[in-house]
Amino acid sequence: MLAYPGMTLLDLVGPQHMFAAMLGATVRIAAKTLDPIRSDLGMTIQPDVTFADAHLEPDVIFTPGSIAGTFAAMEDTETVDFLAARGEHARYVTSVCTGAMLLGQAGLIDGYRVSTHWLAKPAMDAFGATATDERVTKDRNRLTGGGVTAGIDFGLTMVEELRGTDYAQSVQLMAEYAPAPPLDAGTPDTAPPAVRDRMAAAFPGFEEHARAVASNRRQ
Amino acid sequence: MLAYPGMTLLDLVGPQHMFAAMLGATVRIAAKTLDPIRSDLGMTIQPDVTFADAHLEPDVIFTPGSIAGTFAAMEDTETVDFLAARGEHARYVTSVCTGAMLLGQAGLIDGYRVSTHWLAKPAMDAFGATATDERVTKDRNRLTGGGVTAGIDFGLTMVEELRGTDYAQSVQLMAEYAPAPPLDAGTPDTAPPAVRDRMAAAFPGFEEHARAVASNRRQ
Repeated sequence: MLAYPGMTLLDLVGPQHMFAAMLGATVRIAAKTLDPIRSDLGMTIQPDVTFADAHLEPDVIFTPGSIAGTFAAMEDTETVDFLAARGEHARYVTSVCTGAMLLGQAGLIDGYRVSTHWLAKPAMDAFGATATDERVTKDRNRLTGGGVTAGIDFGLTMVEELRGTDYAQSVQLMAEYAPAPPLDAGTPDTAPPAVRDRMAAAFPGFEEHARAVASNRRQ
Repeated sequence: MLAYPGMTLLDLVGPQHMFAAMLGATVRIAAKTLDPIRSDLGMTIQPDVTFADAHLEPDVIFTPGSIAGTFAAMEDTETVDFLAARGEHARYVTSVCTGAMLLGQAGLIDGYRVSTHWLAKPAMDAFGATATDERVTKDRNRLTGGGVTAGIDFGLTMVEELRGTDYAQSVQLMAEYAPAPPLDAGTPDTAPPAVRDRMAAAFPGFEEHARAVASNRRQ
């Protein structure tokens, strides 16, 4: 699992919980160095392994998203090279949220259908990908989740993929995953129009920024 | 937000995401020392502040749960003292998952209704508390969530409590919290009986352990 400065920690920890709940799974948090990494909302984690020492042929390569942190990671050659190299040999190439842009920058979703954060959907064509309206999208060996909290749905989907339904049900029960949102504003379609318009306007130039960075993506 | 060795990281990071999404909020991860803390499923975080330096009158005190790690924390005098002292002055006293047992050990839920992980419900009376079947329970200034993933519902409930509905809807939209579990096994009632029975049997002596530790709880 890739980690980088300014990532959204919940994008990473939702799937990490599900992955690590599989007995016998070896889950590693890989980063450029072993220095602590501060996430976009302020929590700091400690990676386990450097890019150089990370397993060369993982079953799963995963990247979280965010906004500023992801754009910075997309312009970081070492990070993009790491994803591209591991993505070539991994059984599954995966992301949550705007992490799909980082897969895209590494040339890993060209010709694929993907889920991503609603904010990033309009830019997916710049990576040769097609954004779906699904919470989790599987296209061949690419499994991608939507924004932030979709990491739980994505992670559980991966458990079912890797270990079967019965195993995934056990993990779901232990994580008591029976969500009950107190409000119904989780998508642009269900949020009140005023909320949707305000949040869409809060990130001016997002799509243009994504397209500009994507012009240098790996092919 | 309390952190301790062996905690379940997702219990902490779900609420931390929601808390820190409130502009102007100061969210701190407090621990006995500033040493890195390894969570039960292997990820390591870096706390921000020691118990000694943590704010004396926080708006919110929060504790995550787990199994072995929570039992150990319940027998750690410094940890229980910290929770008891901050709980006395906090506007809100909160937990997710088996974190309710830790609140109970600090004498903070005697006479209260609480949510907790299904595994811990039968032991809640040992802390003077009554377990509900709710995903999130508010009883006066105690707000508690169910197991692990309930931290997202709990966190969003807290945002609404502290900043109002419109603000919480904005946070929900950015976190794209429109859950779509791929399976329906998140509670003992919805899981297939074989899955439920297997997982219930996987933690023999849980209730007895909780009762034994609770016999030394703060009054």
